[in-house]
Amino acid sequence: MAELSRRRLLSAGAVVLGGTGLAWGAREVTLDQGPQAAPPAPTEPEVEPFYGAHQAGIATAPQAHSTFVALDLRPEVDRAALIRLLKVWTEDAARLTEGRAALADTEPDLATEPTRLTVTVGFGPGVFRAGNVEHLRPAWLRPLPPFAVDRLEDRWSGGDLLLQVGAEDPVTVAHALRVLLKGAAGFGTVRWTQRGFRRARGTQAPGTTMRNLFGQVDGTANPSPGTADFSDLVWDTGAGQAWMAGGTSVVIRRTHLDLDEWDKVDRPGREQSVGRRLSDGAPLTGDSEHDEPDFAAVGASGFPVIPEFSHIARARSADPRQRIHRRGYNYDEAPASGEISDSGLIFVCYQADVDAQFVPIQQRLSELDMLNQWTTPIGSAVFAIPPGCAKGGYIGQQLLGS
Amino acid sequence: MAELSRRRLLSAGAVVLGGTGLAWGAREVTLDQGPQAAPPAPTEPEVEPFYGAHQAGIATAPQAHSTFVALDLRPEVDRAALIRLLKVWTEDAARLTEGRAALADTEPDLATEPTRLTVTVGFGPGVFRAGNVEHLRPAWLRPLPPFAVDRLEDRWSGGDLLLQVGAEDPVTVAHALRVLLKGAAGFGTVRWTQRGFRRARGTQAPGTTMRNLFGQVDGTANPSPGTADFSDLVWDTGAGQAWMAGGTSVVIRRTHLDLDEWDKVDRPGREQSVGRRLSDGAPLTGDSEHDEPDFAAVGASGFPVIPEFSHIARARSADPRQRIHRRGYNYDEAPASGEISDSGLIFVCYQADVDAQFVPIQQRLSELDMLNQWTTPIGSAVFAIPPGCAKGGYIGQQLLGS
Ligand code: HEM
Ligand code: HEM
Repeated sequence: MAELSRRRLLSAGAVVLGGTGLAWGAREVTLDQGPQAAPPAPTEPEVEPFYGAHQAGIATAPQAHSTFVALDLRPEVDRAALIRLLKVWTEDAARLTEGRAALADTEPDLATEPTRLTVTVGFGPGVFRAGNVEHLRPAWLRPLPPFAVDRLEDRWSGGDLLLQVGAEDPVTVAHALRVLLKGAAGFGTVRWTQRGFRRARGTQAPGTTMRNLFGQVDGTANPSPGTADFSDLVWDTGAGQAWMAGGTSVVIRRTHLDLDEWDKVDRPGREQSVGRRLSDGAPLTGDSEHDEPDFAAVGASGFPVIPEFSHIARARSADPRQRIHRRGYNYDEAPASGEISDSGLIFVCYQADVDAQFVPIQQRLSELDMLNQWTTPIGSAVFAIPPGCAKGGYIGQQLLGS
Repeated sequence: MAELSRRRLLSAGAVVLGGTGLAWGAREVTLDQGPQAAPPAPTEPEVEPFYGAHQAGIATAPQAHSTFVALDLRPEVDRAALIRLLKVWTEDAARLTEGRAALADTEPDLATEPTRLTVTVGFGPGVFRAGNVEHLRPAWLRPLPPFAVDRLEDRWSGGDLLLQVGAEDPVTVAHALRVLLKGAAGFGTVRWTQRGFRRARGTQAPGTTMRNLFGQVDGTANPSPGTADFSDLVWDTGAGQAWMAGGTSVVIRRTHLDLDEWDKVDRPGREQSVGRRLSDGAPLTGDSEHDEPDFAAVGASGFPVIPEFSHIARARSADPRQRIHRRGYNYDEAPASGEISDSGLIFVCYQADVDAQFVPIQQRLSELDMLNQWTTPIGSAVFAIPPGCAKGGYIGQQLLGS
């Protein structure tokens, strides 16, 4: 009893610290969150709001785990069926992200710890065919043009529907995914699954940048969620398709990293290939991570300090519109026979317009980028991310109606 | 500068809190552990000592992530080669677990956050053949006898050498594994890889029991690390093979959980199949998780409250020696075409004597256990876990000499 009240007290403390009163209010006191569970830091509420103008999982600070699943729709799925599926997903996602069991949850005991769970739904071209709303498809929603660097495999490419499920806790991700995929069983089948990870919660300070498995600081030159710059780059204005206002697009490129070859390159060589220092991600012309790179600076030899063929020199454009929001995840799968590892980056980026923002960058990188020597895109998929919804609505309602 | 000193201060604070002065003393101050990184709770130091009478990763409180890799030795590997490999592994593991880069670490920037990293090395029968020390092989070190429930697949079974790598942080696990497997490249090839997870650090209170993907509280009736009971059950006394004193054995059984069928069973049915409540793991005859089950209690109908065919009734023996230390991990892989999920339990247990402790339990369960309806062993491997070593020594030295 004393134990119980102490826990209740701590849980109440967490509400105060966590800030997001509404979400926390909805969360029941769970008994297995004992006195030693670290209270969420003010910048890291355990619950990410599900409802809103935008879907969660995009401007959300990346969680440690994120799984991306693409589904193929069954041929018989029509607009009415799509609406049924999306209503179920919305209901389940809303509950799970608050730490409540889904409506038909057969393992409710696994639903109690959302740990910042987000569920993000995306639409491939197939949704527009099935829903008979082809005229409402964003112009950029189609497979990317082929790039010279591509070695795409079908098993990592395409898909009619996307589920992106992220949380700090891998059990929560597994449970949420299963609930959502059970809900989809009559409507579609899994086409591919990509499981990504970053540093565990609490391992690196919030706001610092992740490292990929090359050891690089990866994600520095990103627009900051919450700023006007971010909104301009990421959220659709509705100018192309009115229903997409508040939505965005996602490009998911599974990229194999050749660690065996990378490991043969010395540190200066690696730093030149990106244009940034390995130790802290600072540009080769700067002192700290967020210094502006100086592409004009030349060294003693007369060559640019940041090589013209480096990844950041090639990725950056003079056109401020040619920017994207990257939110990638590491992958590390069981190695094939005779190999040491099978590692890479699930390259994930969001932008209002794939054609205007992503494609020119990828085109430039494909033509020339020192990093290409060790990176190979083996999967590629594009999805429209519909806007968020309010309580009572469902994800996709702006497209499919009620 | 102010930022840096504040970090240094916090890092110093962590040393005090963390307790294990030696290990923390060896850890360099890392700059990306910022002010908001949660300091490790007193019961959860960030560094698990590598050197000691026993290898780490057995009595160690389970970390969120653990990957198990079995290797096949190359045919030319002899005793001298084994010693070379084990010295490299020992050196690298000792450094990595302290948060220092390995000697030939090509991604030292990924080595800074051990998050309780442990590396545990196991020997399959192949080590004794290669080392020409067959006479020193523990009697129980061979494939398990066949059980009626087995549906074993080669790709999850056997192996000459085991690497068990656990940490709270999945990036740390990926990095450590790659370092160790690179070190082994000339000596062996990966036979299988099994990646397991539990709740993320901080999600459940330390000391509480994990749930598996059936939603069951799993691990209640385990001996407590640090007690004489645990030592008696787990650590080899050296009576069979003197060199094994302080070592143990591990059984790794990959067990597929049929969640689709499990989900059709109602809660009472599920609770009867195990003999414990789903909500908190209490025995059906008790009030809380750690109450002793009363197998003699009968209900109104005259039948035992804990069914005789339930998992715990069948797993438990009157012989106090027939006990094991379970330390399993969930797995959740990409589902096969048309499936919703591919989930299960990497059943992992440690015991001084496989034949005397594990085999009779597994034999009883194989003959009769309500849980068998939904669980299928698809992989099986047994390894001898040599004792730990002191600084200057190497893992396996008691077997292979110097
Ligand atoms: C998968 C292999 C890739 C790796 C390992 C990689 C790594 C990096 C690294 C280390 C940086 C510098 C730090 C930062 O700003 O995040 C960077 C920057 C960047 N990358 Fe990549 N990248 C990869 C692929 C791509 C792709 C496919 C694109 C887009 C088509 C891309 C676009 C960018 C952009 C726009 C920047 C920021 C450049 C700037 O303005 O400074 N990267 N990348
Ligand atoms: C892989 C499928 C399995 C599942 C899902 C499972 C689940 C459980 C659960 C929920 C409990 C009760 C709580 C606890 O004490 O941990 C339990 C107990 C136990 N299980 Fe399993 N188990 C599995 C396989 C096995 C196997 C293969 C063995 C050994 C051969 C085993 C041995 C035991 C033992 C010894 C206990 C403690 C019984 C007692 O003394 O109360 N289990 N298991």
